[in-house]
Amino acid sequence: MNEMNTQVLLAARPQGWVRESDFRIVESPVPDIGEGQILVRNHYLSLDPYMRGRMNDAKSYAASVNLGDVMVGGTAGEVLKSKHPKFAAGDKVVGYLGWQLYGVSDGVQLQKVDAGRIPLSAYLGVVGMPGVTAWVGLMDICAPKAGETVVVTAASGAVGSVVGQLAKIHGCRAVGIAGGAEKCRYVVEELGFDACVDYKAGNLRADIRSATPDGIDCLFENVGGEIFDTLLGRMNAFSRIAVCGLIAQYNTEPYPMKNIGSVLVNRIRMQGFIVSEHLPRWPTALKELGQGVAEGRIKYRETVAQGLENAPKAFIGMLKGENFGKQLVKLV
Amino acid sequence: MNEMNTQVLLAARPQGWVRESDFRIVESPVPDIGEGQILVRNHYLSLDPYMRGRMNDAKSYAASVNLGDVMVGGTAGEVLKSKHPKFAAGDKVVGYLGWQLYGVSDGVQLQKVDAGRIPLSAYLGVVGMPGVTAWVGLMDICAPKAGETVVVTAASGAVGSVVGQLAKIHGCRAVGIAGGAEKCRYVVEELGFDACVDYKAGNLRADIRSATPDGIDCLFENVGGEIFDTLLGRMNAFSRIAVCGLIAQYNTEPYPMKNIGSVLVNRIRMQGFIVSEHLPRWPTALKELGQGVAEGRIKYRETVAQGLENAPKAFIGMLKGENFGKQLVKLV
Repeated sequence: MNEMNTQVLLAARPQGWVRESDFRIVESPVPDIGEGQILVRNHYLSLDPYMRGRMNDAKSYAASVNLGDVMVGGTAGEVLKSKHPKFAAGDKVVGYLGWQLYGVSDGVQLQKVDAGRIPLSAYLGVVGMPGVTAWVGLMDICAPKAGETVVVTAASGAVGSVVGQLAKIHGCRAVGIAGGAEKCRYVVEELGFDACVDYKAGNLRADIRSATPDGIDCLFENVGGEIFDTLLGRMNAFSRIAVCGLIAQYNTEPYPMKNIGSVLVNRIRMQGFIVSEHLPRWPTALKELGQGVAEGRIKYRETVAQGLENAPKAFIGMLKGENFGKQLVKLV
Repeated sequence: MNEMNTQVLLAARPQGWVRESDFRIVESPVPDIGEGQILVRNHYLSLDPYMRGRMNDAKSYAASVNLGDVMVGGTAGEVLKSKHPKFAAGDKVVGYLGWQLYGVSDGVQLQKVDAGRIPLSAYLGVVGMPGVTAWVGLMDICAPKAGETVVVTAASGAVGSVVGQLAKIHGCRAVGIAGGAEKCRYVVEELGFDACVDYKAGNLRADIRSATPDGIDCLFENVGGEIFDTLLGRMNAFSRIAVCGLIAQYNTEPYPMKNIGSVLVNRIRMQGFIVSEHLPRWPTALKELGQGVAEGRIKYRETVAQGLENAPKAFIGMLKGENFGKQLVKLV
């Protein structure tokens, strides 16, 4: 095979906000495969907030990407060659082959998917890691009862959009927080949330209050910072908070939280979680999500950057909330 | 009966730190009792941090004390007269008769106790509400495993001292945080904690680090503020935090917390709780605590103010950490 592979490497550890110069794009020969291996041509790369943490050297829940290594990332593509008994050329697959056009897998983290029923890209979003993240955080950690108020931040995003739709399916009042009138309109009119607060509108506290007349029973937190702090002040007695992400502070100094006293006053249960540590729940989650998508009850939206060379820029934009729905990079 | 009752009323809602002028001491006739009622002469009044919240008008987990009402509080004393079938003159009882010398009960929140086996005052501390608070927060919410590191703030106090001793009994490393060398010495040498950090010594972060070489698995938080924030940065993966009190910020503006990101990074479970909402656990807790005290495995210390007229001053001192162990007021 003479075609070249394109890869995006981590070139430098970001100081504050990520810059394009923190990445380096290189070309190298497409690798050969050995016994038990599979060569995959990636069609989509998933861009997700967790990747920001992997760029740091600091202690976190997952190993850092080493300088000079290919950036980690979820991918969806097609098997080109296989010396593995369970995969054949032409299979559509999702895995974690990173920011590159071609990847070699030993099959361990590679899943065959049915791209006829649901589009291939959706396996990186609503019926993939972000969708399961929404499901586990809402159903297992928040555990809402019908009639309760569920609030989710980054509500138009890959995770948040699913949280609110699942909340509605399970009989809750769903309230989103999103940046900008257009995203809020989408969250309410397309996704069916009961209300959405535009955090850029300048009336955060008052708008949250009117969107949650009965307070908040479940908070699915993706953002952190001032929004999280304000929501803390609106929590009900015995409410639950699933801390899924704190994207607002991945690139800046942490926001000084003032409302932590609400945890005591309202006997809140707050729990941080990472979806990869809840593997036994994935099949249940994916079944419900897949059915919801197939039946049109769960909708999703994608922002698709074209070409791997645009991945760094798209990633930086996503960290700033410039995407709308699931951020992908199309590689073919 | 011609003797007069002395009562401490809430005279004003505190602005910031409580002042003695927020209370008013009055005399009134000792009340008569009707059918089904019990007249109790209080011997001890318990002073507890939660009372600060009751002085506010703000929404909290319990009703505010109305201006002009007797301050709420736990009491231990002796039945003087009874028209209730379950109580007789001479019975030693604990209840919630408030800041006054005499109280009338209908028996609902009144418990007869055995003041022969354990001193009467201890029923307001180690074998009372504070002891059960320690037990519920540690055993049910933190749920430590043998070998884990348990940290408790306000470690020499009525609750904290029991938390650490229970942690030791259950095979954990117990580390206290306390204010001053004398309290720390007591916590280690008398109570048997493995280590104690003096938060007044000026090296909070470094001292916490050396006292917790394997990080923190369970945090029992009584204080809040900078200490809590610093401890958050030392939590281990899958650690648990029981938020029992935040005394550092009851009288001041909340400290701006910067390490909330640790909840996500370390998948922490944090839960606020109030012991009165865990009534089914009281018998189990009191049995273990009573045995521990009777056998000398659980020790306690009291600071006893003399006379009801000194209750306001003692209460203010307790909020500032001037007490050493359980703060009581002796009323006889």
